[in-house]
Amino acid sequence: MYIIAVYDVDKGRCGKMLKLCRAYLNHIQNSVFEGEISEGKLEELKIRAGKIMKNDDSLIVFASRNEKWLEKSIIGSDKRPVDNIL
Amino acid sequence: MYIIAVYDVDKGRCGKMLKLCRAYLNHIQNSVFEGEISEGKLEELKIRAGKIMKNDDSLIVFASRNEKWLEKSIIGSDKRPVDNIL
Repeated sequence: MYIIAVYDVDKGRCGKMLKLCRAYLNHIQNSVFEGEISEGKLEELKIRAGKIMKNDDSLIVFASRNEKWLEKSIIGSDKRPVDNIL
Repeated sequence: MYIIAVYDVDKGRCGKMLKLCRAYLNHIQNSVFEGEISEGKLEELKIRAGKIMKNDDSLIVFASRNEKWLEKSIIGSDKRPVDNIL
């Protein structure tokens, strides 16, 4: 399935969350990720994220069976890191 | 249509972007918004956002014809502001 994941965590945990999400998805903006992922891998990501997060931290996942059902548009700067293009 | 909008802007422009996006959508996390919006209103939002944004600022919009095509799950804290529940 295709998902969009957005996290909002305390600064001290940002690095860990970034590293974790990058291991499963493409980094498209600040704390926003997207990509194709299996249901099993998504469950794994959620469990691992849950272990990192504390207090008011949150991770929102929007899942779609088909990427074509979502149309993405970027206004302003396209900050996609180079490592996703390679 | 149903959209998810996520912005990443310089701190000095966060307040303006927050106020603008709130006028069109529901605020669900830090810089993440969702909601039903007409194509016309979405265009209006993009134009107004473009006027606020500078340099590396960006706004990403994921649009879906049907909210049912997206399944949302929240891991951790549900920070949805009270004004969206009322």
